[in-house]
Amino acid sequence: MARPSLREKLASSAVDTLHANGFNGCSIQDITDAAGVPKGSFFNHFENKEDLAIDSLRRYLEGTRSDILFEEGVAPLQRLKNHFVFLAERLKQNGFERGCMLGLFASEMAQEYPRMREELRLVFETWCQAVESVLREAQDAGDIDPRHDPGQLARFVVNAWEGATIRLKITRDRGPIDDFFNVSFKLLLK
Amino acid sequence: MARPSLREKLASSAVDTLHANGFNGCSIQDITDAAGVPKGSFFNHFENKEDLAIDSLRRYLEGTRSDILFEEGVAPLQRLKNHFVFLAERLKQNGFERGCMLGLFASEMAQEYPRMREELRLVFETWCQAVESVLREAQDAGDIDPRHDPGQLARFVVNAWEGATIRLKITRDRGPIDDFFNVSFKLLLK
Repeated sequence: MARPSLREKLASSAVDTLHANGFNGCSIQDITDAAGVPKGSFFNHFENKEDLAIDSLRRYLEGTRSDILFEEGVAPLQRLKNHFVFLAERLKQNGFERGCMLGLFASEMAQEYPRMREELRLVFETWCQAVESVLREAQDAGDIDPRHDPGQLARFVVNAWEGATIRLKITRDRGPIDDFFNVSFKLLLK
Repeated sequence: MARPSLREKLASSAVDTLHANGFNGCSIQDITDAAGVPKGSFFNHFENKEDLAIDSLRRYLEGTRSDILFEEGVAPLQRLKNHFVFLAERLKQNGFERGCMLGLFASEMAQEYPRMREELRLVFETWCQAVESVLREAQDAGDIDPRHDPGQLARFVVNAWEGATIRLKITRDRGPIDDFFNVSFKLLLK
């Protein structure tokens, strides 16, 4: 019964190692060293490094609390704001140094790793569709101009968020996040 | 007189190799191979790989035609739009596969390479200040609500652009760029 726990040890530690260093910024050896497991055990549990990165991405996403977007009794735009406030808190926990794992993997892996690209495509699509449905509710409630295309707005806002998370790797403060909140929620979504 | 031309061969080829593969996605050997120069010549011309990447970033930026932002006789918001149209053309030339070099290096290098981070900080700051000055002109011309903070808007728009260039590495089409133009210029900056 040692195997499942070794896999778990490796996989849960890898989320951190890959997020901190990027996919190309760490080797399998770095990942197994950080997890405190023998390098030789890697291929008992994962086909290759891409396979592990996809597992890490899924684990990362489990912590994004997408339920906040659909919390009952909260107005749609407030739910959207709460969603990004939660994501901002996660960034803050890493001292605004790491950015978002989606943007990181998209940036360095999309071109060479078709499975990761497809995974990211689906993740972004699902995320955008969730935001779109909240924006539709906001339109129905009269909180957003009904002439605006909620799908387009959703994609724009999600991409703008990703851009803010890239920028804060440089500023190392919450400036890009504040700009995102101020412009998105005070000027755009009103 | 062979040395300067070897350096030039190496440096101009490296822009492409680093942009295509990312900083951690290619070795010095990959870079010298692609340039058709001996690996041993690398350290005659550059201190290290970060040094070369900073050189590549500067070369990349030379092609961004920032003069478009200040073209005489063109209305401020039209200049801003022309600026991003030009950047979008560059992305299209790479089949929307590569994204922007700024976002790429920010994503994978900001944490571990302080010199690159400082370089990127200055580049983004200069870019945002240029966009801000154009937005101020647009405010003076009555084309943007005078109550909006042009610095904040500029930073938001630049970061949203970077987010769009990350996203198109996944979509491989101009969708994220179209969303950027439609929302930025039809809803936000008006």
